[in-house]
Parts: sequence; structure tokens; C-alpha cells
Amino acid sequence: MIRVKFLPSNKMVEVPAGTTILQAAIAAGVQVESTCGGKGTCGKCLVQLSPEKLSPPSPVEKKFLSQAQLSAGWVLACQRMLQEDTVVNLREQKDAYDRKIGFNPVVEQTSVTPSVRKYLVSLPKPSTEEQTPDWERLLSALDRPGIRFSRPVAAYLPRVLRRSNFQVTAVLDGDTLLAVEPGDTLGRCYGLAVDIGTTTVVVYLLDLNKGTVVASGAVTNPQNAFGADVIARITHAASGPEGLHQLQEKVVGGLNDVIARLCHEHDVRPEEIYQAVVVGNTTMSHLFLGIDPTYLAPAPFIPVFRQAVEVEARELGLNILATGKVIVLPNVAGYVGSDTVGVMLAAGVDRLRGINLIIDIGTNGEIVLVGRGRILTCSTAAGPAFEGAEIKYGMRAAEGAIEGVRISADVELDVIAGGKPRGICGSGLIDAIAEMYKAGVLDSSGRLASADAQLQKLPPLVRKRLRKEGRGMEFVLVWGTDSATGEDIVLTQKDVRELQLAKGAIMAGARILLREMGVGPEDIDQVLLAGAFGNFIKKESALGIGLLPPVPLQRIVAIGNAAGDGAKMALLSTVERERAVNLARRAEHIELSNTKEFQQEFVKSLSFSRTGK
Amino acid sequence: MIRVKFLPSNKMVEVPAGTTILQAAIAAGVQVESTCGGKGTCGKCLVQLSPEKLSPPSPVEKKFLSQAQLSAGWVLACQRMLQEDTVVNLREQKDAYDRKIGFNPVVEQTSVTPSVRKYLVSLPKPSTEEQTPDWERLLSALDRPGIRFSRPVAAYLPRVLRRSNFQVTAVLDGDTLLAVEPGDTLGRCYGLAVDIGTTTVVVYLLDLNKGTVVASGAVTNPQNAFGADVIARITHAASGPEGLHQLQEKVVGGLNDVIARLCHEHDVRPEEIYQAVVVGNTTMSHLFLGIDPTYLAPAPFIPVFRQAVEVEARELGLNILATGKVIVLPNVAGYVGSDTVGVMLAAGVDRLRGINLIIDIGTNGEIVLVGRGRILTCSTAAGPAFEGAEIKYGMRAAEGAIEGVRISADVELDVIAGGKPRGICGSGLIDAIAEMYKAGVLDSSGRLASADAQLQKLPPLVRKRLRKEGRGMEFVLVWGTDSATGEDIVLTQKDVRELQLAKGAIMAGARILLREMGVGPEDIDQVLLAGAFGNFIKKESALGIGLLPPVPLQRIVAIGNAAGDGAKMALLSTVERERAVNLARRAEHIELSNTKEFQQEFVKSLSFSRTGK
Repeated sequence: MIRVKFLPSNKMVEVPAGTTILQAAIAAGVQVESTCGGKGTCGKCLVQLSPEKLSPPSPVEKKFLSQAQLSAGWVLACQRMLQEDTVVNLREQKDAYDRKIGFNPVVEQTSVTPSVRKYLVSLPKPSTEEQTPDWERLLSALDRPGIRFSRPVAAYLPRVLRRSNFQVTAVLDGDTLLAVEPGDTLGRCYGLAVDIGTTTVVVYLLDLNKGTVVASGAVTNPQNAFGADVIARITHAASGPEGLHQLQEKVVGGLNDVIARLCHEHDVRPEEIYQAVVVGNTTMSHLFLGIDPTYLAPAPFIPVFRQAVEVEARELGLNILATGKVIVLPNVAGYVGSDTVGVMLAAGVDRLRGINLIIDIGTNGEIVLVGRGRILTCSTAAGPAFEGAEIKYGMRAAEGAIEGVRISADVELDVIAGGKPRGICGSGLIDAIAEMYKAGVLDSSGRLASADAQLQKLPPLVRKRLRKEGRGMEFVLVWGTDSATGEDIVLTQKDVRELQLAKGAIMAGARILLREMGVGPEDIDQVLLAGAFGNFIKKESALGIGLLPPVPLQRIVAIGNAAGDGAKMALLSTVERERAVNLARRAEHIELSNTKEFQQEFVKSLSFSRTGK
Repeated sequence: MIRVKFLPSNKMVEVPAGTTILQAAIAAGVQVESTCGGKGTCGKCLVQLSPEKLSPPSPVEKKFLSQAQLSAGWVLACQRMLQEDTVVNLREQKDAYDRKIGFNPVVEQTSVTPSVRKYLVSLPKPSTEEQTPDWERLLSALDRPGIRFSRPVAAYLPRVLRRSNFQVTAVLDGDTLLAVEPGDTLGRCYGLAVDIGTTTVVVYLLDLNKGTVVASGAVTNPQNAFGADVIARITHAASGPEGLHQLQEKVVGGLNDVIARLCHEHDVRPEEIYQAVVVGNTTMSHLFLGIDPTYLAPAPFIPVFRQAVEVEARELGLNILATGKVIVLPNVAGYVGSDTVGVMLAAGVDRLRGINLIIDIGTNGEIVLVGRGRILTCSTAAGPAFEGAEIKYGMRAAEGAIEGVRISADVELDVIAGGKPRGICGSGLIDAIAEMYKAGVLDSSGRLASADAQLQKLPPLVRKRLRKEGRGMEFVLVWGTDSATGEDIVLTQKDVRELQLAKGAIMAGARILLREMGVGPEDIDQVLLAGAFGNFIKKESALGIGLLPPVPLQRIVAIGNAAGDGAKMALLSTVERERAVNLARRAEHIELSNTKEFQQEFVKSLSFSRTGK
């Protein structure tokens, strides 16, 4: 066994010699970015070792790391097997999520009628003349029919009754008695709304009496260690029950960390959180519940369940009241999950007029078309390009990410949290491509300029940024002198192609849905952009590269983290929860891989041009 | 830490120095008889150490052990704190339960309509045209409405479906899907009927297809280590959550041992056992379910619940199918438990004609009086005298126990499994007292003969057996030359008083119920004796000492382990289970401690005489 210490957290772990740094990081519970899950194909899992003792780089490391990086001790965590006690320096990754999530102090549109209710009751005391058992005594004082017996509550009931002189607060969720608390605790009643993203997990702590958000917090989905996208996660789960169990534990562990922090900061005890409403894509829902997602990956993409699921918190290990209900909202299909149902609920699609197109661009791209009394859904393999994966200098929307680009005489950048840039996030990428297209750095087919005629039209400082790289071209966004790492930050021809494939898939999906409904892009009354991403994307840029159908700018509305808002609504109101179930049931899913026209529409949608022709 | 080895099992345990032998035995999971739970008041926890190194006896040991025993190395396990590695020799206690339980191969009177049912189904295979989730696919093939989602089954469903080419056997219990098994397993379907006695736990393995008992097994209730009677157990549970947890674990551990053995011997996998129906007294039901029984002990004797309880096996740690239901039949009151409800069910009290008195003599004495459209119950503090506790040479009905006594010219004995006697069990005790009364060794007030006039009437060999002991008399049943231990086995005046109190309590309870119903002992049409004890008691002796009301001999019927039979019936038939619930609901419980006449009736019932006047 050897010891590994991770800086800056100082977390230690003991592992057998021969363990990779990535595996050790997983064992230690520290976050190392990895989008391929250790296959050596993404080059994202950079960590720094002491350069003195460093053995020569592997071919994979040579491929992904510059000489400067190698000499500074940077290695790929998946490539290094540990043979002795080692100190590993992690890249600083102060996540900017809290800024991005936003903070909605009141969910105003929802009436506060949660299924969790508290009742203060006084019980008559027993005597030899009146020997009613404690459980029946409580039920008769509660006087609400249909309450089922709860072994865990019965287990401690007699002491609570006698300690509080038979005056107690009963916590009910529907016909389930969740808890009996001594004395009067009516004032304290909390719930969680949870949005489990493939990349980020967001938790909202709500006061169920007031209907307000007390606090929110986010954490990188710790399943990330097993790969960035759902396919990598499914592959790990398919490796056997142990893999599935790991993934389930990881995400619950991440949630418990956030819950512990929020509880601590806001003086709430976890046992005062009586319910959690959870949304996520279909894979995340399966993994969170420990349900085998194997057959979601290959065609015909079959999920195990799609209805809403209710389980006790203790069954999942979620650190709220052990008997509290965890409610996972329903899925629509294998790649349209409860997060999309949350979006539909928050957007109120059953009340919208006209034709509305809703796009949630995340690791996948889910599309909902609402109109003519129908709700159509599809999902597109948008790929994780928008979250920075598969892009050479791509990164998540964290400190140091380029989030805005302007090109005139030269390139100007906006960087998250200021400072020197480290890479580029999704909104920055769209901006960069749109500006590059507008400036003539690339043409409508997505080719970077290389012909003299093209180059001559560019301003000199911009022209200088275009250079040959291997068989293609690349565009230098940031010169090494201005970057955080000292390296040039570039967009390669391959990066452009990745974005092109992603946006082509989304547009093609939208077109298929429009066709199914019998309307055209010109009939769209409103485009709603869901997800944190929608808040930060520049609408002009998205229109400029044909990522969105050609509608007037003012008809594009960013609706924020609508998935999380939907979860909040379902937590605060049984009516809204029932609506979510109905929306999922009403939604008609179009499986694009089963649609003859998809390839055709996809090819048509690849071109960078406002009309998306 | 020191090591303790227990012979003859060779079980080893490491414990801190200063641990008593009794605590070490509990830790090692070996059985040491103890009726006081280590308080030093019962003198039952005899174990043998190597005499050479033995330190002087404690005052408690001096009180309970003869000089011969002390010199042979016998000590009391609760009195000896271990300071070094030790070998402990346990008394041989080959239990005779298997003989006593009887073996009923078919529960003939019950129709076989269990709530567990298996269905063989073939599912259509999915395609991109037909992407129904696995769960819905299964439900639609099953075509039974109202089946609730089961996370544990969903978790493994996709693999089972695909491994067995979408042909599976679904196991349903009501509207709960318990399991999905690959291929056709219709032929294998098992259930358990369990009777948790304070002293002995009995398990029946039933074939739910055929309605037959495959096997049965019994084990001493391992909670015994914490005391022989329910009050000792409650006291331990009341000491805190850890105590309650220990008791719950102990009894489940004992059950799991029997289940493992029965499964092994009969080629049944624990996962093929889909349901368990459990009966026990109210305290045992609470402890089995891990529900705090503290307030059952002091007046007003309040249980936490009395209705039937259903929980998943995994919640209790019972080693049958994890999702299988464990159903504890309803209790009537704090001291009339589901075992008595099982007796009522097996006796068919809702179909009996006339006036029927049912007596279940165990650690407590539960009495049911059925007639005039009513079911009356009471429980009497019969005390554990009938199970050998509080009786100087009392023991359970195991090998070496005197179970029959005849007195004419001298004393003649029947001993379980033949061989030399070690002590006397309940049926032997009743027999002994009845014969002693008949022979004039004691009078109707229970006093052992001491006056010359009395002694002169006795045969010489019998007279010789009466001798002074302290301030009272005692009667030598077995001379040391004929006993297994080399000591005299005696019945003391105190032993006679114990039995007198027990039988007085039972008769007084019966009289109170008769009065409540408005009938007299002469109106009784039938006396049913439940429990293994009832099978072995000599009816003449029981009548002879006034333990039973004066009815003609042929009206006394032993109905065997009716509590276990009731559990079997409820397992095999949902109709019977519903009947049990109704019987419990109909039963009117009379709390004797609340009855003015009880003291009066009790005093009247103490006398040894056939009329019980």
C-alpha cells in the first residue's frame, strides 16, 4: 500500500501500488476532471507532480501536453501508475456555479400546498381503564383516515410521547406518517428540490411553510470521475452491480455534501428535511435510484421505467429524514428525462398559446415543441461540446473560462471572474464561432480560412492568429503571453466541426418536430432557452450560426434553470406535481434515429448561416 | 483482550479482561441458560471451569451451588469475571424440541390460496418503433392492475429479461411485485410460518404450491441471554436503543440460523422463500420489529401497536427474499399477543359451538373464553414456573428432564430421552405436585407434610424423602445416587408455592372471564389446551391440582402448537389471514389488574383440590 496526498485539500488515501492517480483520486473523493473516464482519449485529467522525480511522458501524454507543461510536472492522472508515496497537485477549479445558478428567493407562481404537513396534537393519557396502544392513540388524536403503519416511527413513538407529556407534532406526507416530534415544531418544515445534471448537481433548500428558497448549492456530479457523458456512466454501470453501486453512491455522496453544508449554514437539521423532489435526465434518474441503465445506451434505447418514482430517503442513503420521501419526477423517454419534464412544468407548456419551441442545451440537447394541443419531444446527440468536452481547450463555465468573444481589429475576450483565460466554455465557443464566421475567419461550410483571397480580407492582427496545424488550420484565441498556462489557447478545425455537429443535430431535431406538428419555422411564436447555458448564451451569436431557428431576437427568452424550478414547484404543490405527471404522460416522443428524414435534415442544418439552410 | 473458548462447540471469542463469562457467552453466541439475565438471582447459569485454578466462590455461588458442584469446578457464569484466557465447559443441553414440536406434514383444513402467486410471462421484445420501458413492458404482459413500482426489482429487471430471452416468472404478493426470475420457476414457491416464543422460536418451511410443511426447526430464543421472561427482555430494551437493537438482532439471528439449516437440508434457496407469517406474544412482536416495548412492563401496560404489521424482510434482516413480506399477525393487548390470535385461528373460535375455554400455558398464561357470540381474553402472570424458572431444579423440557411422576410405595419417574434425570420440567412438576397431593405429601393448602400424624400415613420410602430444609420442608424426588449430577433433586416448599401461585392465577383468570360472560364452570363444554405443554401435561394431574376447571376428562383436548398452526394457516390462505385480523378485532380483553374481583378469585384458586373452590 502507498499513500497519496492531494493538494490543495490535503486529502490522503492509501491505495495498492500500481493504482493510477485517477483511481486514487476517486478513492480519495477528490475531483479530477475526466471526460473519457480514464481511457486516455480526452486529455482533461491534468494533475501536477513534483517534476524532479518524473518518469518520461507516455505517448498519450505527449499527444495532449505541451513540452512546457511536461517540464512543469503536468501529467495525465489516468496515465500514471503510482509506485511510491506521492503528492499530487490538483488544478485550481473554483467552480463558478453558484454565480451561474442564480438565486430565486421565492417561487412566486406556485401556491404553497406541499404534500408534507405538520399537525400539533395532544393525546389523552393512557390508564388501565383505557389501554389503547400508542399508535392508535396517536391516530385517533390526528383524526385523519388512511394513515398507514410505520415501523420506524412506531419504533421510537412511546418515548417521544412520554417525554413531551403526550403533546407532539406529527409530520405527514399524504397518508404516510413520516415522524413524530416532541412538542410544537410547526414552525420548522423543509424540503429539497434537486436537479441532477450529468455535469453539475444543484440542490435547493426550501421552507415548506413559507414556500421560499432558503439556500441553494451546487457541486460537480462526482460520477464525473467515471466519464463526462451519460454513455461513459452507463458503460461503467453495465460493468456489473459494483459499478452501478459506485455511481449511485457517488451522486448521493455529492448530494449529502451539499445538504450538510446548506444545513450547517442555515441552522437546519437534516431530519427537518421531509421530502426531496428530484429531476435529472433518464440516465441520471436510473443511476440515482440504483437501477440498471445498461440498455439505455444501445438501440433501441430502452429505459427501465418512466413513471414518477417514490422511495424512502433511507433506501437511497440520502441524508434527509430517513423516512422522508424522495420523489423522482417522471421521464418521457430514454433521452428525455424528468429534467425536461421539470422544464415543461416551469414553462407552463399546458398553458402556452401559439407555437413554442423549448430547447435545453446541456450535455444532451432536449427539444420540446408545444402547440396545436400537442407536446412533442425529441433528444439530439448534441454531444458535450457545449460543456467543453471534445473541444481542445474546452472547459466548464468556471473561473478562467472565456465566455464572450468579439472580433474587430483583433480578438477581445470576456473571462469568467476576470484574470487570465485557461480555456473556453460553451457560451464562449458559440460566441467565438459566430464572430469568426462574421469576420470571415471561417466560411458557411465551417472551413477555417486558408486561401490567400480569404486571408487578405481579414484585419492583420486577426489574420496573424490563423495558422497551419497538422493537415488543417487553427485559430489562436489567446496568445501564450496572455493565458493562464503560458500556452496559446486555440480553436482547431476539429473544434469547429464538433460545434457544427452539435448545432446541426439540434436544428435537425427542431425541424423534425416542426414537420411532425405540420408547421414551419416561421410559425414559431417563441423560443424558450432552458438551462443555465440559456442565460449566458448570446442570442445574436446563437442565431448567427444557425443554432436556433430564424426568429426575431425578442422572441427568444431565456428561462434559466427551469428544470430546477420545476422541481421546486412539484415540491411546493401537489397540484404542480400532478401536472408534471400529466405533462410527461401527454408528451409524444419522436425517436430521431427512427426517422427517415433525420439524416437529410441534419446535413441541411450543418451550415453556419442565419437561416440555417 | 483475552480469549474464551466454549466447549463442546469450540466457539472462541475475544473479550476485554473483566468481562463476565455470561457476557462472553452472549458475545460468542453460545447458549447459557439464565432466567434473571445476570442479576445473580436465578442460579441457572451453571458452567464448568477447570477446578485447579478456581478462585473461591462468591456468596451468590455459595447460595446456589452445592459443595460437590463447587469442587467439580461448577460456577455461575454471571459471577465470574474473566482475567485471562479461559476454557469454559457448557452443560450438555441437547434440546428435545424437535420431538416436542411434533411434525404436521399437511395443514389439511386450510385451502391453499396464499397471497404469493407466480406468473409465467413472455414479453414482446423492444424495438426503436416500440420503446416501452421494461417495467411497463412487464406490467402489460402481466396484465394485473394496481401493481406498484418496486425499485429493488426494477434495479435488476433489464438483465433478467434479456438473459432469459424475455421469458420470466413474476412473483406477486397482492399488488407488490416481489421478484422477477429468469425462465419458468413456477414449481418453486416457499413461505415461512414462525412462532416466536419467549423461550423457543419455531420455524416451519411450507411449500406454497402444495400447502405442505416441508420441514420445521426450533431454536432457543437467543434473547434468553438477556433474561428468561418478558420483563427481563423489556428491561434490557428499555436501557436504550442499543439494548433494543441487540434483542432484535438476536431473535432474527436465531431465525436466520434455523432458516439456513432448513434451506440447506431441503435444497431451498432463501430467495425462494417469499413470505413469512409471524406470531408471538406482544413483547416478542415488538422486539422482533425493533419497536420499543418499554411501556408494556409498568401499568397501564401500553403496547405501541396491536394491528397486523407488514414489513419487508430486508428491513428486519430476515434472510428470506429481501423484498418478501414479513407479516406479524395482530395482537389483542399488551399480554395477549398474535400467538394467542394464532391459537384462536387454529382453534376456529369463530365456528365453535357452546362455551369453550382455551388455555395457553407458557411463560405467561393466556386465556380465551369463547361463547354467546363473544370472545373474551385475559392474561395471567402465571410466571415461568411451568418452564422451569423459579423452581430450584426446574429446567426446560429437554433431555434429562423429569416429565412424569408416579407415587405409590415409592416415587417412579419418566425422564425425557431416558437416562439419569437432571431436573424437572413443567409437565413433570404438575405431575409431581398432583401425585404428592394425592399421596398426602402435601395438603390442599400446599403445605408439605411435617406433623407426625401426616408423616405416619405415608409409605416408608416416600416418608424418607421428606426432610427439613432451613425453616421449611423439602421432598427428594431423586436421590443423588440416581441423578445425572450426583446431587439430590428436590422439590422445596417454595417450589410448591410457585406452582400454586401460577395455577391460582390461571384459575382466577378463567373465573373472571366466566363471570364476565355470565356463565359458570359447569357450563363449559370444552377446555382446549394450547402449546406444546398442553400435549404433555397429564390431564388428570392438571385436574387433580385444580389447574383446570372441574370438567369431565374427555372434554379436555390438547390442540398442540396451535399458535404455529395459526401462522401456517394465515400463510397459506389470505382468507385465514383476514379471519385472524377479524378475530383480533372482535376479541374483548379483560385487564385483570383492573378487576376488583381478581384478588378474591385468586385467593380462592390457590387451594389444591379438584373443584378449585
